[in-house]
Amino acid sequence: MKNIKLTVEYDGAEFKGYQTQPGLRTIQGELETALTFLTGESIRIAAAGRTDAGVHARGQIVSFHTTSGLPVETFEKGMNFYLPDDIAVTNASIAPEGFHARRSAKSREYRYVVLNRKNPSPLWRRFAYHYPYALNLSIMAEGASILVGEHDFAAFAGSEALVKGHTRRRIVKAAVSLEEELVCFCVEANAFLPYQVRTMMGTLLWVGIGKLSVTDFATILDSKDRKVAGPTAPAHGLYFMKANYE
Amino acid sequence: MKNIKLTVEYDGAEFKGYQTQPGLRTIQGELETALTFLTGESIRIAAAGRTDAGVHARGQIVSFHTTSGLPVETFEKGMNFYLPDDIAVTNASIAPEGFHARRSAKSREYRYVVLNRKNPSPLWRRFAYHYPYALNLSIMAEGASILVGEHDFAAFAGSEALVKGHTRRRIVKAAVSLEEELVCFCVEANAFLPYQVRTMMGTLLWVGIGKLSVTDFATILDSKDRKVAGPTAPAHGLYFMKANYE
Repeated sequence: MKNIKLTVEYDGAEFKGYQTQPGLRTIQGELETALTFLTGESIRIAAAGRTDAGVHARGQIVSFHTTSGLPVETFEKGMNFYLPDDIAVTNASIAPEGFHARRSAKSREYRYVVLNRKNPSPLWRRFAYHYPYALNLSIMAEGASILVGEHDFAAFAGSEALVKGHTRRRIVKAAVSLEEELVCFCVEANAFLPYQVRTMMGTLLWVGIGKLSVTDFATILDSKDRKVAGPTAPAHGLYFMKANYE
Repeated sequence: MKNIKLTVEYDGAEFKGYQTQPGLRTIQGELETALTFLTGESIRIAAAGRTDAGVHARGQIVSFHTTSGLPVETFEKGMNFYLPDDIAVTNASIAPEGFHARRSAKSREYRYVVLNRKNPSPLWRRFAYHYPYALNLSIMAEGASILVGEHDFAAFAGSEALVKGHTRRRIVKAAVSLEEELVCFCVEANAFLPYQVRTMMGTLLWVGIGKLSVTDFATILDSKDRKVAGPTAPAHGLYFMKANYE
């Protein structure tokens, strides 16, 4: 029995999210199907981040056990042979016996990409959120810095998480940067609530256009009330970048 | 009568190239159709570079005359309203009377993007050519430097140009650079022959993997014989970046 760790990249546009749902095309479904073709086994995988429909990944991490005798390199080439072209394994390695892609992860990093210019971009249309209004980046960076630390993020969580409670998370990095016309919001936390990054982004954009002040933003975080936060930014600007382990 | 200059961006994947062809979806066709919707006129446009099927553009330049009284800003917003989402006007301005997007252009700049890593990338699959073999970039840069100057580029031209003759062009810049996993070949010339950039790229990749030496590459250029050059690299890695005018 081997424990295998895969790094996975995907274009989320044509997936109904990460998690298996009967009759729908999902990341987990495609990966498990390809694993069955490759190994002949029925394999259940674990993932560092269960991304929503439309969300991309540069460095999703999944792990699983197999009795297959295939060399580990085959979990790159062989998986990429069976996988459709909007999902690929970029690395495969043997993990220590106790490793679990979700439970062992100490933190997750996401990036949200906004195309900030007047006119739309055909080249970025599927990979960045087009936001045509002038943004004050230093004010946005100040807003982002308020997120750092352990907080109850209920104000930025989807209703699913609110029902369950448990909305405290620890953000260790939250930065806003500019590369040409792209505004990037990079955030790392021990874990995230459903829709949290996208709702933080949507609210930070309101700070960027001056609809909210940094003080308003802090008040929204403190309120723990989703109704006072800004909109949830669309899925196609969001990337799962990496998971960090011990 | 006004002379209008547009900067146009497009994702070339779903176009049968720039130039109008009956019954096929082309850049020129979509732009002229949108102009008719916007102005009510039947307008024929000129373009700095007539890109092939599948080739992208960041800064294609087109120009045309119109008697329309619409303010020039409307040729951004209004065009983007009528255009499909894989083509957009990123700038519109009034040009001097004698300006012609093709005839006035002093040079054109193209970029060819290669994803150089072992495994494929779902995120780049439509926007860079995946080339998994190890490349020697400094040798490729040396090869590229040989292209600079006025030469007969028949060795790198599609057969269409060979029939017509007139295969001398002047390259003023040819550089190879690396950004993370992306190898970029940036080239500027007074004008290019059909398939020239893609065939120079395909041949430079053979230099990069050591299948050809820099001396071989120089010999190929001198030969003026397409049969001795390398393969034509695929369209989806190529971008028309900009046109330069006086």
